[in-house]
Amino acid sequence: METARRAADIEPFRVMAILARARALQAEGRDIVHMEVGEPDFPTPEPIVEAGIAALRAGHTHYTPALGLPALREAIAGYYGERHDVDVSPGRVAVTTGASGALLLVMAALFDPGDEVLLADPGYPCNRHFARVVEARGVGVPLGPESAFQLTAELVARHWGPRTRGVLVANPGNPTGTLIAAAELAAIREVARARGGWLIVDEIYHELIYDRVEPSAAVLGDDVIVINSFSKYFLMTGWRLGWLLAPEALIPAIDRLAQNLFLAPPTVAQHAALAALQPDTRPLLEARKTELGMRRDLLLPELSRLGFDLPVAPQGAFYVYAGIARFGLDSEALAEKLLLEADVAITPGTDFGGHDARRHVRFAYTTSAERIRAALARIESALKPLING
Amino acid sequence: METARRAADIEPFRVMAILARARALQAEGRDIVHMEVGEPDFPTPEPIVEAGIAALRAGHTHYTPALGLPALREAIAGYYGERHDVDVSPGRVAVTTGASGALLLVMAALFDPGDEVLLADPGYPCNRHFARVVEARGVGVPLGPESAFQLTAELVARHWGPRTRGVLVANPGNPTGTLIAAAELAAIREVARARGGWLIVDEIYHELIYDRVEPSAAVLGDDVIVINSFSKYFLMTGWRLGWLLAPEALIPAIDRLAQNLFLAPPTVAQHAALAALQPDTRPLLEARKTELGMRRDLLLPELSRLGFDLPVAPQGAFYVYAGIARFGLDSEALAEKLLLEADVAITPGTDFGGHDARRHVRFAYTTSAERIRAALARIESALKPLING
Repeated sequence: METARRAADIEPFRVMAILARARALQAEGRDIVHMEVGEPDFPTPEPIVEAGIAALRAGHTHYTPALGLPALREAIAGYYGERHDVDVSPGRVAVTTGASGALLLVMAALFDPGDEVLLADPGYPCNRHFARVVEARGVGVPLGPESAFQLTAELVARHWGPRTRGVLVANPGNPTGTLIAAAELAAIREVARARGGWLIVDEIYHELIYDRVEPSAAVLGDDVIVINSFSKYFLMTGWRLGWLLAPEALIPAIDRLAQNLFLAPPTVAQHAALAALQPDTRPLLEARKTELGMRRDLLLPELSRLGFDLPVAPQGAFYVYAGIARFGLDSEALAEKLLLEADVAITPGTDFGGHDARRHVRFAYTTSAERIRAALARIESALKPLING
Repeated sequence: METARRAADIEPFRVMAILARARALQAEGRDIVHMEVGEPDFPTPEPIVEAGIAALRAGHTHYTPALGLPALREAIAGYYGERHDVDVSPGRVAVTTGASGALLLVMAALFDPGDEVLLADPGYPCNRHFARVVEARGVGVPLGPESAFQLTAELVARHWGPRTRGVLVANPGNPTGTLIAAAELAAIREVARARGGWLIVDEIYHELIYDRVEPSAAVLGDDVIVINSFSKYFLMTGWRLGWLLAPEALIPAIDRLAQNLFLAPPTVAQHAALAALQPDTRPLLEARKTELGMRRDLLLPELSRLGFDLPVAPQGAFYVYAGIARFGLDSEALAEKLLLEADVAITPGTDFGGHDARRHVRFAYTTSAERIRAALARIESALKPLING
């Protein structure tokens, strides 16, 4: 009995395999520092957890509407007004099962077989697989430090082909934590509009921009599809809740797809998310963000000192994409070496695309400053022979 | 800017629209009896809720492995040993985001564009849309009372075409609550195997078979894909958790797809599900099942007395699929009439396929006996003029 051709095309999300290996080593008694996983070590803040508990005690265990609780759709719409001074109708909000659910719904709603969507390479590896599942094609555009590993309007225009139907950017990006300037993003939107294509902006790390305030892509207009999540800034990874903003005219199709593919997002997570958006919760989230920023400031100069290339500084998210030319190993071999010899788990660049992926690795600063310091010392010991040699 | 062609092909899950209208009428002060929704009115039993609360208090808010918590995969495997005396390896279990997640993963793993999968008509409406999303095609086989609205080996063989790659059955079925006899299911498997195709068995209502004990399709062999859910019998709809059993060789593809499309199923639901499978919880679930059976026994003779045709008795799930020839209205008009004139929400047959769908409606006995009695009295008043006329 055969499987689908696509089953062979779906690559493993390598970081999950590394995580599994790291956990297996831990089970053998090894003390592994986890810098591979895109998930902060912080637990969900207490007011959010308590709201979840209260919802369970109140018997909120049934399905919600497929697009989410009306109160949550309103709260998310209100969030754009408060944070970005942009008027978003609750009718344009779809609550989803993680940003993953949003990406699937958007790809399914927009792209036919053979349609192409431009993606950043390096970029979030699942994006091309969401496209693959609906028989569309994610086309990675090779990016380097000259554009801070982000797409530009010029690159989008240059790579737009006859089958291109849209472009998906992440702002900040994963694995690089770099930004697209507001004016550049507006220019990308114009390129897409001029060609009758879609601009999709993944903003799941947008609240984790450290040194400045950036507008959401929602300010560009109703035609831009914005994806966000309660996972990263709101520290609700395991709850599996995200959302999207789409043009009002697209919402009925998103609703039908969500009804059929998901029935509804998890109910307890939706009630908890209402607390996540409460003003009282924000200081707790901001404190965590400050902590993440301190980790970044600890990590960057040290990685540089150890011989990693850091051509661009990450401005958001919790990742450092580091060049490893100095060490004379490809990224998978280096990640393997650090896992086995330094007990530090990181992600090889090959998880994020094909362009220059063997010459980069990703460090996630999703563990404590103390653990990061321990990891740096061990990495230094493991890599020193390579530099001297 | 265009949407995908599939967006227009995805039909609304009509019951969701009816539910929304019923809720709108309620908001106007009307007292609506809900017999449309495939979700029992019972809250999740307390030990399950408490396990969820304990998990949240313990900080279990992070991602789990994509295939689910190892302890839950083991518990599910153990459940097949205890309930069905069949040895299932935990490595064959994938925990999913509802049975919906399982259906998407299975369709994505097995079916290429243009591949066909045979489905029951009438049947669960989302099945053909899962196929549509991966550009495969669900082919409904028209079924009637002569096969208790279920596929038979003979029908599967007759409808198997050059592009058919599998057959999906639900046992018991939705909207009919009827069963496929064990020998017939074994024969269907043989037909599929002989043609190199897959048998997928949806058993989400399997624990809600009232008057007999039926073996799970898992006993037929490792090659049969079994889908199940914590939603219906375990009363965990809003938690969004299900599972599948697949051949060991298919699990790596399912794992890769799950990593990319879902990351992981909801964590709190997984911890709660461990309690759902505890022996102590079972009496609570059985008591709810008994209550559902009593509702069925109340509803069936009364619907018959009111003039509905009940050519086959439902043996499981919580649905009655009733013929409405006597009333001279099509199913959508009748559902509309009952909603507006009797304040009773039911689902027209058109939600479940095309075959004879305008001559049937579905009653879900997912509300209390008292409410069912009230609904029956109101339905009688609304329909009496149609019978006399």
